[in-house]
Amino acid sequence: MSIAHRAQRVRARLAAADVDALLLNDLTNIRWVTGFTGSNGWVVLDRTGDGLTLVTDGRYGQQAAAQMAAAGVEGVVLVGATGADTQAHLAALCAPHARVGFEAEHVTFAQHARWAGAFQTDLRPTHGIVEAERRVKDAGEIEAMARACAIADQALAEVVPHLEGLTEAEARNRLETRMRELGATGPSYETIVATGPVNAALPHHRPTDTVIESGHTVIIDVGALVGGYHSDMTRTFVVGDPTPLQQALYDLVLLAQQAGVAAVKAGMSVKELDGVCRGIITEAGYGDWFTHGTGHGVGLLIHEDPFVNRAGDAILQVGDVVTVEPGVYRDGFGGVRVEDLVVVTEDGCRVLTASPKDSPCLPSPPTT
Amino acid sequence: MSIAHRAQRVRARLAAADVDALLLNDLTNIRWVTGFTGSNGWVVLDRTGDGLTLVTDGRYGQQAAAQMAAAGVEGVVLVGATGADTQAHLAALCAPHARVGFEAEHVTFAQHARWAGAFQTDLRPTHGIVEAERRVKDAGEIEAMARACAIADQALAEVVPHLEGLTEAEARNRLETRMRELGATGPSYETIVATGPVNAALPHHRPTDTVIESGHTVIIDVGALVGGYHSDMTRTFVVGDPTPLQQALYDLVLLAQQAGVAAVKAGMSVKELDGVCRGIITEAGYGDWFTHGTGHGVGLLIHEDPFVNRAGDAILQVGDVVTVEPGVYRDGFGGVRVEDLVVVTEDGCRVLTASPKDSPCLPSPPTT
Repeated sequence: MSIAHRAQRVRARLAAADVDALLLNDLTNIRWVTGFTGSNGWVVLDRTGDGLTLVTDGRYGQQAAAQMAAAGVEGVVLVGATGADTQAHLAALCAPHARVGFEAEHVTFAQHARWAGAFQTDLRPTHGIVEAERRVKDAGEIEAMARACAIADQALAEVVPHLEGLTEAEARNRLETRMRELGATGPSYETIVATGPVNAALPHHRPTDTVIESGHTVIIDVGALVGGYHSDMTRTFVVGDPTPLQQALYDLVLLAQQAGVAAVKAGMSVKELDGVCRGIITEAGYGDWFTHGTGHGVGLLIHEDPFVNRAGDAILQVGDVVTVEPGVYRDGFGGVRVEDLVVVTEDGCRVLTASPKDSPCLPSPPTT
Repeated sequence: MSIAHRAQRVRARLAAADVDALLLNDLTNIRWVTGFTGSNGWVVLDRTGDGLTLVTDGRYGQQAAAQMAAAGVEGVVLVGATGADTQAHLAALCAPHARVGFEAEHVTFAQHARWAGAFQTDLRPTHGIVEAERRVKDAGEIEAMARACAIADQALAEVVPHLEGLTEAEARNRLETRMRELGATGPSYETIVATGPVNAALPHHRPTDTVIESGHTVIIDVGALVGGYHSDMTRTFVVGDPTPLQQALYDLVLLAQQAGVAAVKAGMSVKELDGVCRGIITEAGYGDWFTHGTGHGVGLLIHEDPFVNRAGDAILQVGDVVTVEPGVYRDGFGGVRVEDLVVVTEDGCRVLTASPKDSPCLPSPPTT
């Protein structure tokens, strides 16, 4: 993973945005550009020079300097002892520039009003400048995500044979503990374990004390975090013999998901990809049960550009890492979702997640 | 914990804000008012009627209705299939009102611009209306936080005797696993385990593979999450016999921390409380080593109002739950921080965290 050249990639976009410098406040964008992982910071990036200054508070001054040095990022770190002090630093850094872009999708209305009242410069809204570079992953980033996927695959494989009789929360705990033992910093997001006719009907259910029992559909949505990069995967299981409806809906969702994965390639619109999955489910009469988009980008955030849904207008690019995750949900039935994480390539995609998905049946526990 | 009456507490503040309705977008504020825990939502609250409408996306429609019903909150849930659909719902909900307040500290500049271009109503910035109610905790909220503190206390007590020889990451894993087993939803934040002359000098260090060894100062900052409520506590240990400087700085920080806890009471300014801790450390000649504020509010967020630092102008109120956590840090030495979580009362405070802090020495492992 090479961080040092990223500031230059961002600078190359500033002329088109008609600004002389860019003031970043989004911490994920700041991490991507500088390597800094603290919870408080701003960066001012000059368009023409090499200037990059990070402003943070007293907790992070030393850490920021160390992380930028480790990433090979040249720049200055300033510490603001108070909010007023920080704002004075930022005003001084912006003052030499006639037009300074700010991140309109990340700066709050109130923050902008305070800056506009205090800065001597023309502050201009910009949209997604860093995100446009950040969505395209390099080999090191993809490697981190592939490792995260492999950890989640292994944790799931170890836990799944023992699911029956566990509570949702116990299954989550086992998955998350095992992912850490396997080298993850932690879970990539709050692991979803949703079992039975009520809970599995909620696409983003949080684990409870509900016991996983025969007859249930069980949705497990699990990912690992490695070096700040996320993985994302969902598998659905049926405890015991599937009913005809459970089997039919599993087969339908799997068909739609496999068609989606097979369709992914650079140059395709996200709307088109969403349509591939949604079309199959709608044609089978379950369009109303597919209540969310087909996928989203994944990287330093678990949800990031490009979002794959019927309203999006993004075009897939080589290096985008996106989920393909159609699902159907109905209270009284439960739900089925199948999700893989893929890297977009010139003529297709590389699938990073490898857990089996051919059948919803639980594997038997290993005999010893 | 009683959620049903909270909307009425917020409504009572709308006349003073000179708005006819309030449009909430902050998910923590929305959770506090409605009980809804999803990751996407908006609420429109009428000032004069009983109107409360929550708008979310297809993943959360059913969950939102169920959570509001469970909390006894009367209201309507609308689902927006796309961003445009959601915005149309919000525009229609705001249209009957001449002046609608929005959360200026939470709405982005870009979001406001989109709303301002599409809504027929006069959108007015408001600041901290829900937060002003939310910071004062009720008995049920305090009970949840007390349980979270007790879980972290017990996990720490079990792990501390075995610290020597573990890596920072292993110690974190044990703490977080144990907190889950004891009933926490998870850690309250990324657990900090920072050992030795370099890592412990970073107030917000993230655990690494560094081994906890004799001679080190080890800072452990750990909390649990219970029912959405956070706990927060820090203890510092010395592995082996403390050097005179380690003992002196431990004693100094503990003295400052105990003086801070003893000073807390309703009516005191946060600046004054910060001054109590900072004064003692500064007088001893280590003011430059105390590089952060004295504390912060804790609740549904790990960091929330009121922030306790030298620049704050908040006044402590009965029901505020705040940390008191002075610390000193120096590269080559390491660091010392001692932190408790307290509930402000009329004439003092109730300390929720109970881990021993008299001595920096590690307890011996229990013999069996």
